[in-house]
Amino acid sequence: MRPDREKILLDTLRRLLRRGAVARLKNLVAKSHTADLAAVFPLLRSAEQERLLALIRDPKQKARLFSELEDDIRSALLQSMSDNEVAEIVTHMSSDDVAALIATLPDQRAKAVLERMKREDSEEVHELLAHDQETAGRIMVPNFVALPETTSAREAVAVLQRQYADIEMPFYLYVVDDHGRLRGVVSLRQLVVVPPDTALKSIMRTDVVSVHTSTDQEEVAGIVAHYNLLAIPVVDDNNLLVGIVTVDDVIDVIQDEATEDVLKIAGITGAGAYVETQSILKSIHKRLPWLLAAWVGGVVASFVVGHFQQTLSKLISLAAFMPIVMGMGGNVGTQTSASIIRGLATGKIDLGQVKRVILREFSIGFCLGFVYGLMLSLFANLRYGFGLWKLGLVVGLAMICSMTLAATFASCLPLVLHRFRIDPAVASGPFVTTCTDILSVLFYFKIASFFLPL
Amino acid sequence: MRPDREKILLDTLRRLLRRGAVARLKNLVAKSHTADLAAVFPLLRSAEQERLLALIRDPKQKARLFSELEDDIRSALLQSMSDNEVAEIVTHMSSDDVAALIATLPDQRAKAVLERMKREDSEEVHELLAHDQETAGRIMVPNFVALPETTSAREAVAVLQRQYADIEMPFYLYVVDDHGRLRGVVSLRQLVVVPPDTALKSIMRTDVVSVHTSTDQEEVAGIVAHYNLLAIPVVDDNNLLVGIVTVDDVIDVIQDEATEDVLKIAGITGAGAYVETQSILKSIHKRLPWLLAAWVGGVVASFVVGHFQQTLSKLISLAAFMPIVMGMGGNVGTQTSASIIRGLATGKIDLGQVKRVILREFSIGFCLGFVYGLMLSLFANLRYGFGLWKLGLVVGLAMICSMTLAATFASCLPLVLHRFRIDPAVASGPFVTTCTDILSVLFYFKIASFFLPL
Repeated sequence: MRPDREKILLDTLRRLLRRGAVARLKNLVAKSHTADLAAVFPLLRSAEQERLLALIRDPKQKARLFSELEDDIRSALLQSMSDNEVAEIVTHMSSDDVAALIATLPDQRAKAVLERMKREDSEEVHELLAHDQETAGRIMVPNFVALPETTSAREAVAVLQRQYADIEMPFYLYVVDDHGRLRGVVSLRQLVVVPPDTALKSIMRTDVVSVHTSTDQEEVAGIVAHYNLLAIPVVDDNNLLVGIVTVDDVIDVIQDEATEDVLKIAGITGAGAYVETQSILKSIHKRLPWLLAAWVGGVVASFVVGHFQQTLSKLISLAAFMPIVMGMGGNVGTQTSASIIRGLATGKIDLGQVKRVILREFSIGFCLGFVYGLMLSLFANLRYGFGLWKLGLVVGLAMICSMTLAATFASCLPLVLHRFRIDPAVASGPFVTTCTDILSVLFYFKIASFFLPL
Repeated sequence: MRPDREKILLDTLRRLLRRGAVARLKNLVAKSHTADLAAVFPLLRSAEQERLLALIRDPKQKARLFSELEDDIRSALLQSMSDNEVAEIVTHMSSDDVAALIATLPDQRAKAVLERMKREDSEEVHELLAHDQETAGRIMVPNFVALPETTSAREAVAVLQRQYADIEMPFYLYVVDDHGRLRGVVSLRQLVVVPPDTALKSIMRTDVVSVHTSTDQEEVAGIVAHYNLLAIPVVDDNNLLVGIVTVDDVIDVIQDEATEDVLKIAGITGAGAYVETQSILKSIHKRLPWLLAAWVGGVVASFVVGHFQQTLSKLISLAAFMPIVMGMGGNVGTQTSASIIRGLATGKIDLGQVKRVILREFSIGFCLGFVYGLMLSLFANLRYGFGLWKLGLVVGLAMICSMTLAATFASCLPLVLHRFRIDPAVASGPFVTTCTDILSVLFYFKIASFFLPL
């Protein structure tokens, strides 16, 4: 939502809440887009949230609001509601959203809510919950249109019109055999341009792009984006069509995964987005682990420097160039790992090209190291005089080593992790920087003590 | 595309190309998804690319392929084609894709191609090109269905069926007044559930979410994602409906912008994704600028250290803790700026909360600094003995300063840039790290010289 719209809605809601203008509040809430309400909800105090929620009369709107709210706010609101109230809300939610909500509830509560739902609905939810988190099976919905191969175009149109009441927007028409196995797909457009008696079998596309229930949601999103689909069919082990994943959920996945990538690269663990209302303690908790790794790395680096104390005391100016040698290595490492990670995430790099990619990054690191190493060498000579030319040589060589090493290491690591199916974004950031720091310092002093006494 | 599928297609294409099996190649190409061809195209040598392109007989498939290829590969292919050939291809492309392609051509060439197009098509393209890059006006398509308010539901259904031949998938039906100004929107579902004589005016939603032609594409994507839309109408200064932006283009925008954010945070400038075929020189070029900034920062840091050479020579062990003090500041700075940048990009932080956000990050920085500073202080005492307790005090205090400062600075900077409508991602990464480095070193030695002689 545009910030100005959000601000107006928030201010109006607060003013009306303060004045207790119930009638106008009800009116405003009913008129507002649920997505807008969901956006301002986190900015209200929890007492305000509860009062506002009580004013939403339309159970469908309430359900939509709950579908859109962030997990932590939703959990807080659910705590003050009875099992019956929760069950009433989830009745109007789509089954993938219910599954996501149920998964955040304590076991006892989850069971109580599921028991109060219609049997048909709760079974659907149970099926989704049987699949792992972040897979196609978990985020699919069962609202698809599937017809036998022998159906005529005319019959298909009639079915679509009848089912419109149930399905917000039929994206595609799927064709299945007698066992419910996915056979083909027909676009709505084809249906109306062929003679009405044509059987679906003769107009369907048979090379349907589908995913398995166990496919990772990031891969699902990549496939939908790659083929510009509005929905993708999900099949089980027997190729039975069991659901579809729609493009709006795919967008959520892409946004969440992108945010996760950015935060992981920066060394923040755990789920997702910046949440303004998240407690400071929780934020600290998410940042502690990688900082601890960096801290340990720093302590190791301090031992390395300590080890070369004698070298350093012979030429105290060496200390002046420690920051730049380490910093440049760290920076080129971050650049490299970020571009590899995004390349893997968007499918621009695949594992057939590992050697080429690493060789490429090695070359880039070396070239950059050479340029900036030469510059630093010249600078050192200018500053400390050409009498100390060996200092210039040492810092220049150290810079080349540090940057080449950093680029190579930062390209290998994500590729290796990706091969072993570990998310490469996790290992980047502080880890690459820390290892690079230690190696840079080590090489720097090794080179220095080789050339010293100056 | 899944890596295995891509590999099989690539290998098969290469084998058939080597064997000159033209008939089988034609068959394979015709059968393949264009998106798949576009994915393997960059992995072929340019001679192979040209031979393959010559085998694509269907001009529509060729057009789709050109729509999907990355800019640099497309440019290379276009160079060896005549103006007429290019004009024939773009005839079958949607106008937003033509505009994107034309924008990459030299002026002379662009003019020649546009002249060879049908007048109606080239006018459409001209209109798009009149808008700035990366705005709604540039990525919209004119294929929408707009009907007057007085149209009945029955008439609307008839129009939709006639227009199906032209429009791949009508997402929504827009309602306009006599002047073509956007008045409302009707979902396809509503059309079939109301009595056929109902006028659109009485069933349309009037609070249509729309964007202006000048709206930034990232904002357009955010709005489409926020309201879970399949398409969003674009209006001009007079509120005339001039186009729609569809969800498949929105996904591309979201992916590109996320990649750009990641790369910018890591200090890589310029457009987008990791392109395997991009020359090493070009990659180096993209990484040089920020590294230069970091280099200059490193040189400044070397002056700072040089300035405190006396302090350092009195207690050479101070050098051992330089890396950890600087590194921890840099890490917490990166964490902070990354979470703020994504918060801004996904709309979780808005500018009404600037003070709160900064105060929050300041507190987080201080707490983290306190914890890790205390740990470092204890470590220093253990290692160098409690006789040198002042060293422990110095490193502990320096760590607190460094981390608090880094977190505060890294939160202020993106917020300030965002307020001045500069992309906050640009200024992160190396810039934050570099400034933090200099400030950390400065404070470290300031504190040290205050407490020294030990």
